Parts: sequence; C-alpha cells; structure tokens
Amino acid sequence: MKQQWVRFEDAGKATFGTVEGDAVHEHQGDMYGRSELTGRVFVLAGLKLLTPSEPTKVIALWNNFHALGAKLSLPVPAEPLYLLKAPNSFAAHGDAIKKPLCEGKVVFEGELGIVIGKTATAVAEADALDHVFGYTCANDVTVADILNRDASFAQWVRAKGFDTFCPMGPVVATGLDPATLVVTTVLNGEERQNYPISDMRFSVQRLVSLISQDMTLNPGDVILCGTSVGVGSMKPGSQVEIGIEGIGKLSNRFG
Amino acid sequence: MKQQWVRFEDAGKATFGTVEGDAVHEHQGDMYGRSELTGRVFVLAGLKLLTPSEPTKVIALWNNFHALGAKLSLPVPAEPLYLLKAPNSFAAHGDAIKKPLCEGKVVFEGELGIVIGKTATAVAEADALDHVFGYTCANDVTVADILNRDASFAQWVRAKGFDTFCPMGPVVATGLDPATLVVTTVLNGEERQNYPISDMRFSVQRLVSLISQDMTLNPGDVILCGTSVGVGSMKPGSQVEIGIEGIGKLSNRFG
Repeated sequence: MKQQWVRFEDAGKATFGTVEGDAVHEHQGDMYGRSELTGRVFVLAGLKLLTPSEPTKVIALWNNFHALGAKLSLPVPAEPLYLLKAPNSFAAHGDAIKKPLCEGKVVFEGELGIVIGKTATAVAEADALDHVFGYTCANDVTVADILNRDASFAQWVRAKGFDTFCPMGPVVATGLDPATLVVTTVLNGEERQNYPISDMRFSVQRLVSLISQDMTLNPGDVILCGTSVGVGSMKPGSQVEIGIEGIGKLSNRFG
Repeated sequence: MKQQWVRFEDAGKATFGTVEGDAVHEHQGDMYGRSELTGRVFVLAGLKLLTPSEPTKVIALWNNFHALGAKLSLPVPAEPLYLLKAPNSFAAHGDAIKKPLCEGKVVFEGELGIVIGKTATAVAEADALDHVFGYTCANDVTVADILNRDASFAQWVRAKGFDTFCPMGPVVATGLDPATLVVTTVLNGEERQNYPISDMRFSVQRLVSLISQDMTLNPGDVILCGTSVGVGSMKPGSQVEIGIEGIGKLSNRFG
C-alpha cells in the first residue's frame, strides 16, 4: 500500500504518523509492523521532522551505477562494495549540514535509501522485498579531499562520517517500485543530478539479499544505493535538495 | 577511582553494576554519570554478561602500532586511519563468534577498547582523558581474504562487520593508566599476542582528540586502538582469550 511515514518531534518526544496532504495522522505502536491511529492530527508544515527511521546502521554503496562507472572508468565490481555512515552523521530534513573543522571540498551525493522493515539474515533475492519497509531520499555528504590522501588506506568511513553528513527524509514511502524511480539533486535552484534507479549495477533485491549474507539488517536500517553522475561541491550557504517522486524532497542547507 | 563495571541480563532486562571479587553490586542510574547501589548483589559467575557498553558506534584503528607497522613495512600514517565496526558485530564475553557464510580465513586481533564517558566534540588533547570512562578488551575479528580482493575498493567495513565479529568485555575498567597496559591474546591455550599499549603511534589522548574533530563521540562509544604483531586465524572450535591486566579476560569460541 502506498503510504508516506514521517517521524517528528512533539513536546520534546519522538512520534510518528502518516502524511495525507498537509496533515500528519499520528500513529502509535511499531512503524514497521502493527500500529494504530492515535486520533491526533498535526499540520505537516509546522513539524520538526526527525530522521525517517532510527537506523542501527546506514550502509552506503560505492560504484553502483553504470553511468558513473563509465564516466570515471571504474572497474565493474563483482560484488556490492560498501562502507558505513557514522551515526553522528544522521540528520533530518531541514537540518543544517555542518561545515567540518577540516579543510577540503565538501560534495553532495543524491541517493535512494532503502529502509529495512523486517530483520534480514541471509535472505534470498526472491524474498528480499518482503524485508523492505520503504524508500527515502538521502544525501551522502563527503569531504572528497580526505578519501585518498593517505595512499595506504582509503578513508571512506572518515570522509563520509562527519557530524550531519547523512541527511535522510523527508518521509519513508511504501508501496513504490524502486526500479521506476528517478533521483534528482538541485543545488541552489539548479538541477545537478537526474538519474534512474534502473541504472543500478545491483538492484534493490540483490543489495538486500547479498548484504544480508554478511550483516543482519534490522528494521529501520538504511542502505544508500550509491550515486550517479553530477556530484558537485557545496559552498557555505548552499541549499541542496534531493528529490524522488513519491517520496518528496529532502532539503538541507550547508554551513 | 579503580572500578570494574559490567552490564548483564537479569530476568530478560539489561542492568549494570560493579564487580568486587565474585560479586556484582547492582547500580541504577547512568553508568557514565550518577548512579547508586540498588542493594541487590549477584554472583558474577552465574551472570549472562552483555557488551560492556551500548555504543552508538565502534571505531577501529588500522596501522596504529610501531611493531606491526615495522613487520609489515607499512608507511607511517600522518593521521589516525580508521573504519567502523557494524553494530550487528557487537558481542559480549562468552558469546560465540559465528562462522560467516562466506569462505575465507577468519583472524583474531586482540585490542584495547577505549570507552567514552562524556560527549566529545573537538576536544583538546589535554582534555581528552576527561571524556574517557574506562577501558575494555576487544577482538577485532576479520575475514582477511575479503579485505583486498577488490583492487578498486578495500573492504574494511565488510571484512570486519559480520555478525558477532566484535566481542568486547568482560568489563569496563576505570582508573587505569592506558600507557602502562599490555594486551595478550591466547588461542587454544597458547599465547599468540603480547604487546604494550605504549607502542601505539597515536596515544589514547591523541586518538580521542583527533577523532572527535571529525565525529562527535557519545557515552558508550568505543575506539578500538588497533592491533600489533601475532594476529592469526581461527578454526571452528577455537577458543580465543584477550587479556589486559586490570580489565580481565574476554573469552569467546569461534564457530
């Protein structure tokens, strides 16, 4: 069923509900399982949104799009190549992306996020989508200059793990066919990325199945599918918007 | 003050306390801040221990010991090089280290774990120890064959992120001087590692200070200091024991 779930703050506490137009209908219970309406309705525009789920981990893919691989002449990977985004990097729609203390170019990467709904350990590809709750937008922010400055150790985790470097949201949308989705990134009003999820080397089903062979995935965990062409740098004051039809627009200011 | 804190299970719930000889004196409150005795006392030997803290992240250092760097002819790093251990890898004293589904040599790495006690963002080296709660033993388990099998992307996070690949414990010990500690690893009764923490390239103070420039560290977060010479592989049935005087022995069976 097509639904849009949001987590938000009410009187200092986290709660959640479904979006219908401008309204949010609060639920109680388990967002990924059984939940029921509380009867309380909020105006969406007035809410402080939280990260769309509470992940125990966010896994981020590298080199997962044919178009970007071709542009950068990257080898075709035999298996999903991934890292972890640090929990201190998780941020919500509307949160500021903080300029890190270090020097270096900070780049945006618009991405699709897969939100897990059911504990997944070594699930078959045919069963993988049963373990997916829905989808969200994400910005896999990176200090590009850190990545390869040490020749002996690629610093993926560090370059992508600064505080607020993983905005996600605004909602988790259920009932979407991921293969039909298109990711757009708009920097200061100008479109910079526009690429189809169908161009992925490893589909949503294959990612969930293969990664779950290595690591148990928990409800709320997020897999960022990797980015494609059009990545660019942000200047202090830049406004970045990652959009996916059916999910909405994740908007954050840098610096 | 020298104390040993343990987290353990009681009637299906997590609780914590201090170890005195064979007894555990239960506390309530904040383990890292203000807590008080509940009056309940448990026999240590009968307890199901939990991970010594509940980390939002475990950061693991690479190439942090002069002796191992010299043996492997590694370059001297200009800054701490690190990755994240996945939360599904966190395991307690006594838990089995599960054999992963994939093929490949699985190695133990005995390490010192720094347990953070106070939120740390960009702390100075002189203030770093004020943000440390204590120390624990850890086994940074790794599928060695995965690390470099893709020439374009070193798979640190994956190789070290399998379920149960990060045993920690048995306790968090406070009031220790980390520079005086020695890590030993015993595999099936035979000593395989015995190295001093004073051989670290980056001291505890420098690690906490430098990493906190990048990532906010939260109470319970753990920094694994990296390992030194003597790393080896485990066969199904192997018993591995990481010992540090003042902390105790972290014991886990593989497979």
